[in-house]
Amino acid sequence: MDKYAQTDHPIHDLLKTRWSPRTFSAQPVESEKLFSLFEAARWSASGGNTQPWSFIVTSRENPAAFEKLLGTLGERNQLWAKNAPVLVLSITKSEREPGKPNAWAGYDLGQSVAHLSVQASALGLYVHQMGGFDRQKAAQVFELPAGHEAMTVFSIGYPGDPASLPEGLRERELETRTRNPLSEFVFDGAWQQPLAEKNASLN
Amino acid sequence: MDKYAQTDHPIHDLLKTRWSPRTFSAQPVESEKLFSLFEAARWSASGGNTQPWSFIVTSRENPAAFEKLLGTLGERNQLWAKNAPVLVLSITKSEREPGKPNAWAGYDLGQSVAHLSVQASALGLYVHQMGGFDRQKAAQVFELPAGHEAMTVFSIGYPGDPASLPEGLRERELETRTRNPLSEFVFDGAWQQPLAEKNASLN
Repeated sequence: MDKYAQTDHPIHDLLKTRWSPRTFSAQPVESEKLFSLFEAARWSASGGNTQPWSFIVTSRENPAAFEKLLGTLGERNQLWAKNAPVLVLSITKSEREPGKPNAWAGYDLGQSVAHLSVQASALGLYVHQMGGFDRQKAAQVFELPAGHEAMTVFSIGYPGDPASLPEGLRERELETRTRNPLSEFVFDGAWQQPLAEKNASLN
Repeated sequence: MDKYAQTDHPIHDLLKTRWSPRTFSAQPVESEKLFSLFEAARWSASGGNTQPWSFIVTSRENPAAFEKLLGTLGERNQLWAKNAPVLVLSITKSEREPGKPNAWAGYDLGQSVAHLSVQASALGLYVHQMGGFDRQKAAQVFELPAGHEAMTVFSIGYPGDPASLPEGLRERELETRTRNPLSEFVFDGAWQQPLAEKNASLN
């Protein structure tokens, strides 16, 4: 199934082939590959090298933890996520110290998960991130300490067969991926002034 | 200069070789490469495909805009950033609609910039992100609309010579890169329970 990004400018294959499927095969994720994914997350950039990220990993090896995390997801996400081999809760340290918020905590966690998903691409694995879960419930059931926030839940696995998805989700799985054109969000020195393609290089 | 990540588990070269230098050569950034960087940003994941990111690009071609952005940086960042060929303001759409905040706006922007920096790695370019700038001032001078936030400023360029940096910054440029060990932030089903390396795969 070709879900490659239909780009207007060339990008690296690892980025071009990355997408967020809802079907995962029953094939387990090898432990050493899983560690490479988190190693990639580890080496992403963060403000003042604060590294405000943590991850709680759950899999079928520990069904109690897996079910606990699955139970925080919205119904529609549970439909497919229950078949993923690995589900991870991503957590950000939103305060540098009590009462001192870190404005880049979410931003840096996002970078970290992005690096993880690029590493997944390199290993033939796919990641699907979700915001559709009960963040407060997740913080409670996993007893996150104060100053930490549950941000996303993501699945990791090898690609599965879209035909296995329930009606509705199946069609969505086969849809072409879309994005806003660059002219809508890349500006030249001023808000809403599209950056023109020039032959000249930017000095 | 070898600033490769000293990893405990293998990761892809694009991630291993990425780092955030403070020296950039005078070599201009080719326009087509710059567009590939933003194309990579464009295809990153976001909650409900909201794509809450925008970028204002400044370069020496437009010294007024470049100086305006440079002037929002802290003094220490200005010292080296003034020599970067390209400086970019990253902006997140922090509200879905007036009064309705998007909790993942920063997270998704972070992912987008991470993809951009991985694409930079693929093209021999480097990115240095900064939180050390006056976010309110940046929003004012670039007249960002309500519901948008200036999040980071980042430089883009080819690597330069660390010897050109002022004392203090030069030493820092040559330091070994460090990160917390995985056992401190990757947990097995419960907070603070380190994920053990097993031979078994996770099913």
